[in-house]
Amino acid sequence: MSSAPVLVQSPMSKLPVRESHCEGRPLSALLCPRSVAVIGASRSRGQLGGEIFHNMLANGFTGAVYPVHPEARSIQGVRAYKSVLELPEPVDLAVVVVPKGAVARVAEECAAAGVKGIVVISAGFAEVGEVGKTLQDELLAKVRAAGMRMIGPNCLGVINTNPAVGLNATFAPSWPPAGKVAFCSQSGAVGVAILDFAKQLGIGISQFVSIGNKADVSGNDLLEHWEDDPNTSVILLYLESFGNPRRFMKVARRVSRKKPILIVKSGRTAAGARAASSHTGALAGLDVAVDALLGQAGVLRVGTIEELFDAAMLLSNQPAPAGNRVAILTNAGGPGIMAADACESNGLVLPPLTPQTERALREFLPKEASTRNPVDMVASATPDFYNRALSLLLADENVDSVISLFVPPLITAPLEVARAVRRGMAGTNKPVLSCFMGANGVPEALETLREGRIPSYTFPESAAMALARAVRYGQWLARPEGTVPELANIAPDRARKAIAFGPGAERQERWLRPDEVRELLAAYGIQAPRTLFASSEQGAVDAARQIGFPVALKLVSDTLTHKSDVGGVVLGLEDADSVGEAYRAIGERLSRRGLQDQMDGVMVQEMVRGGVEAFVGVTQDPLYGPLIGFGIGGVNVEVWKDVVFRVHPLTDRDAREMLEQIRGVKLLDGYRGAAPADREALADALLRVSRMVGDLPEIRELDINPLIARRPGKGVIAVDARIRVG
Amino acid sequence: MSSAPVLVQSPMSKLPVRESHCEGRPLSALLCPRSVAVIGASRSRGQLGGEIFHNMLANGFTGAVYPVHPEARSIQGVRAYKSVLELPEPVDLAVVVVPKGAVARVAEECAAAGVKGIVVISAGFAEVGEVGKTLQDELLAKVRAAGMRMIGPNCLGVINTNPAVGLNATFAPSWPPAGKVAFCSQSGAVGVAILDFAKQLGIGISQFVSIGNKADVSGNDLLEHWEDDPNTSVILLYLESFGNPRRFMKVARRVSRKKPILIVKSGRTAAGARAASSHTGALAGLDVAVDALLGQAGVLRVGTIEELFDAAMLLSNQPAPAGNRVAILTNAGGPGIMAADACESNGLVLPPLTPQTERALREFLPKEASTRNPVDMVASATPDFYNRALSLLLADENVDSVISLFVPPLITAPLEVARAVRRGMAGTNKPVLSCFMGANGVPEALETLREGRIPSYTFPESAAMALARAVRYGQWLARPEGTVPELANIAPDRARKAIAFGPGAERQERWLRPDEVRELLAAYGIQAPRTLFASSEQGAVDAARQIGFPVALKLVSDTLTHKSDVGGVVLGLEDADSVGEAYRAIGERLSRRGLQDQMDGVMVQEMVRGGVEAFVGVTQDPLYGPLIGFGIGGVNVEVWKDVVFRVHPLTDRDAREMLEQIRGVKLLDGYRGAAPADREALADALLRVSRMVGDLPEIRELDINPLIARRPGKGVIAVDARIRVG
Repeated sequence: MSSAPVLVQSPMSKLPVRESHCEGRPLSALLCPRSVAVIGASRSRGQLGGEIFHNMLANGFTGAVYPVHPEARSIQGVRAYKSVLELPEPVDLAVVVVPKGAVARVAEECAAAGVKGIVVISAGFAEVGEVGKTLQDELLAKVRAAGMRMIGPNCLGVINTNPAVGLNATFAPSWPPAGKVAFCSQSGAVGVAILDFAKQLGIGISQFVSIGNKADVSGNDLLEHWEDDPNTSVILLYLESFGNPRRFMKVARRVSRKKPILIVKSGRTAAGARAASSHTGALAGLDVAVDALLGQAGVLRVGTIEELFDAAMLLSNQPAPAGNRVAILTNAGGPGIMAADACESNGLVLPPLTPQTERALREFLPKEASTRNPVDMVASATPDFYNRALSLLLADENVDSVISLFVPPLITAPLEVARAVRRGMAGTNKPVLSCFMGANGVPEALETLREGRIPSYTFPESAAMALARAVRYGQWLARPEGTVPELANIAPDRARKAIAFGPGAERQERWLRPDEVRELLAAYGIQAPRTLFASSEQGAVDAARQIGFPVALKLVSDTLTHKSDVGGVVLGLEDADSVGEAYRAIGERLSRRGLQDQMDGVMVQEMVRGGVEAFVGVTQDPLYGPLIGFGIGGVNVEVWKDVVFRVHPLTDRDAREMLEQIRGVKLLDGYRGAAPADREALADALLRVSRMVGDLPEIRELDINPLIARRPGKGVIAVDARIRVG
Repeated sequence: MSSAPVLVQSPMSKLPVRESHCEGRPLSALLCPRSVAVIGASRSRGQLGGEIFHNMLANGFTGAVYPVHPEARSIQGVRAYKSVLELPEPVDLAVVVVPKGAVARVAEECAAAGVKGIVVISAGFAEVGEVGKTLQDELLAKVRAAGMRMIGPNCLGVINTNPAVGLNATFAPSWPPAGKVAFCSQSGAVGVAILDFAKQLGIGISQFVSIGNKADVSGNDLLEHWEDDPNTSVILLYLESFGNPRRFMKVARRVSRKKPILIVKSGRTAAGARAASSHTGALAGLDVAVDALLGQAGVLRVGTIEELFDAAMLLSNQPAPAGNRVAILTNAGGPGIMAADACESNGLVLPPLTPQTERALREFLPKEASTRNPVDMVASATPDFYNRALSLLLADENVDSVISLFVPPLITAPLEVARAVRRGMAGTNKPVLSCFMGANGVPEALETLREGRIPSYTFPESAAMALARAVRYGQWLARPEGTVPELANIAPDRARKAIAFGPGAERQERWLRPDEVRELLAAYGIQAPRTLFASSEQGAVDAARQIGFPVALKLVSDTLTHKSDVGGVVLGLEDADSVGEAYRAIGERLSRRGLQDQMDGVMVQEMVRGGVEAFVGVTQDPLYGPLIGFGIGGVNVEVWKDVVFRVHPLTDRDAREMLEQIRGVKLLDGYRGAAPADREALADALLRVSRMVGDLPEIRELDINPLIARRPGKGVIAVDARIRVG
């Protein structure tokens, strides 16, 4: 084994110098500082202040860095100052790594010295409880008063690999390669692992920010900062919580039209349990709001850090594919099958190739080769085969992207194949992914692929999963943005009056009475069946005659919310005798359970026959606001939990997508001879409900089940609804 | 960078020499040969015959290896022979790497020379089509005639890392570390990648076999070989197809009680499409049979090679956990949250710790630490904390396993923590997994963990997923083995008579007539409602009077299989007039569609009221045999596809599990005031159906929908059933 000299390549030689974008933006002082003070810098490596100062010196920082230390004359060979006030020039950024009790005083000094931003590494603030929270609030107040910005406290620091900056104000042991991927991590510990992993995988990072307790600068601020950063083409987030989810949604929805945002959102188990007395509340699992929010904002959620990087590797190097049709190119059958399976199980399709492509492939491939997709060129495939086949596949109009697999047999040099793959993709605007399996001679091949901006994966499954995410992003970009439409027949004032709290019962949580529910629905243009209240057998019979047979009887009770559970619903009553009998029977069933006192009377209701039973529900998430759900109605909702959620406010596109995304969508099409459902009216009802809960924040929960959808053009009718206010 | 001498450690020093298990077993000559001929050995590295011979020499083979070459006097420094017939001693194994046309002749020579087994690397056999298949059949005939065994053709070769053997008869560039994991790969190319990946991850391999076209030796043979191999504790399979799935099921079910079997089963897209005219056929996706088969055999299916190794790393080093309760130990909050999420989303639970454990943890952990699960010891955690906390968690009766996370802060040496983790787990029989995030100083720590048999993962998600698989294996071991029970009231002869093919219609595929269906169900003790056939309006009325009202009318037609789609089902007819009217209405609906000729008459059927509607179906998989499905009946089956499948024959345990595993299981419990279902009778009906399709292979498809389950003790009744024979 010969010991070759190790070339440490200066980051300066890699990327063009760009200074302009750094200036005059809100976070410039923090992320692109021209000069930095490290307050609490230490001589001792192995202490935070020592590591940070070392990292500041070691990674090509293009400005001046000043150590601040109460006693030392110099730190790691650099002249030290006793206070930030004594520095020879005002600095943009101060990195603060002093004991927590001293941070506020240091911040004041920074303000006095004209520092524009501080990164507070020190811990012991909000993350340790109430006392720390108070300390943090005091610190934030001082920072805000001075017009400074702050990252942290309790963070790992910030990195900017742009050679025009060369900032490593962290105590992390790894300095990642420079590149186009920006990363924001809420956890410092995860950040350490992320930087290390990025380095191992060769993922190029533009900026890295550990936001810690995010007292001032949040993930939202960083999204806005990276939105127009020409050095950043993909944004990755590791978040455990959203401070302001509505702002996140607004910002992320805008930014994700310009560059992909990928997130690992952790902390599902830490989420507080949501009140779950209604169907909707119980259905909306703890994480449903987060999924809805991210989906509506076009943010790609992935499960693990590995998947995050796999997808980032693709999206930072290749265009988003125009569709989900993948061609697979391989020199071995097994990996081709593996890749095909992985593509299909990730929702991608392997289209047939055009006859022209197949013919052109047959011209040079051996007869044992398969010219169908996956194209298996067999082990004798030469680099030239890769070049020509890849060109042909990319030119095929049935193909949106190509995964190129290679297992090194003995005859072919991986490096030559890597070069051929690069040549083969010249001039395409379709993404190409590669998978070079097995290690023999591969490192140079991987380097060649990397230089050619071709992401490479150890196994085909990771490639397929990453590609599926890129397809999803491409689809997001292609779809028109939805709007929150104007709606006719809306009377918010009438609705407010209907549910106005009496002077006594103010703010009391309660279920609305049936007449209030009907009034509310009417005020938002949602049709309900004709209904009369009756509190006696004779009253029920009279009401039924007035409405016209057949009718349904439904128990009215302030306390019993699931009426069918107590035998409180009788449907399809065809004549007066049946109505009278049903009224008595409901009373008797309650008596048998000792619940006779809970019966206030019944609603006598027009029977709505036929149609598709749908479900619309709303639950309030304490953090994310109203969550609106749609599904197939009846007991199906609870048994199969086939409900799709969105965060309020719904756009027209959201409403339409909700209908499409339930598993039971075929029931809307007129299943097994039944009439199809009025989808327009269903989507309209969703928009009306969204508007209603937006106008009336006192609505805590709402279930319409069933919302019966008639034939197209015939509208929907809310047969049963429950609304809780508070 | 100093250039330290590279120590090449002999594999001999690693594992104790074990010879005994190698002898006298069917595959010994192939996997533990004492002498080997390489026929087609070559001087040129870079050719298959050169690489294989090199590998044979380079990896410590303990016997003699003879190169066979038509001309060369020596190969890579070893005296060569012109033919296997000229060798100075008979060899156990010949590795054949000659052109495909010469393989059969070489096999004959091997037989003549007393060779016991051959590994045929050469390609160009069944994998290239019919001509190759013929060649392969001829080869196999010669091998069988000589009483030899054969691996391949078209394979990568075999490896046995046991230092008593030291066999590397492959052309793969990587020699994996020795260990307890046996690997069988159907794809040679995937095998190359697997060996390389095993080496990268430090996964110890006992034996590796690339089975290629598996003309003779199959995965089943290897399972049996490894069943009692003391050097193998985990078996990994990469398969694209099962040659003999029934034998696989039988062997795997037995072996997986002794050691875990993990599989990546690829080739879903290559599977032939299954006839899908019935509900069951359409529901059973292409991969359902494989999932059912593997589940019933206790084989753990994973999605990717990475997951395969992650799980193998755990199962080859640690005992299977007794349950799914995990404690998480960490020195940083973020990774703890990540791990908790990953555990919960993989079906594991984080139990509360006992008060004693919490108290004991509080005694030494700082007050900022969290002594709840996940236990966050914060960044100041010392190695001693890890040691003590881990011991406490392992001693906690609420805890079945522990994931220990560590992010290197600056103060603590990873190596010391790794040692502390090893000390902390002394004496436990619960599994411990570790995740050392970030690279600083970690290599030695990882080595220490590895020596302590503690699997280590880059990120917590992989650890959680591997643990979930080990939990599943533990549960499989803990459950009693099911049996195929004896059933009363079975009359197979009566059934055979009922569906006997007439002399004309022999072997013709057809749907049984309703009376035949009823007879068949009756012969297997499955109750059906009282039913009479009628072919006129008056006949229907008379039949209804005989049965007693209410009745249902159901169209009888040889050609229309989905009766309700054409308005051919009318339920709840209370009197003679309604029956007459319904008969006419069915006829009119058919007329309107021009289908009047398709009506043979109606069945007049006792109405079965109430009860839970279930679904039982059978479809035939061409490879896996009868697949039996269970679900909630009615349209639910098709809309929500909530059906669980098993491969025939069902054991009592299979039948009970099927009821539990549908998503709508709560409907069996008496949902929302409905009566619960007779689960015993449902399970019994499944066993009867399984017996039926076992006795009567002419049954191609069967749907019972609905199978109405009455209250416990009251049995089930097959209200509607369709059976296709052929």
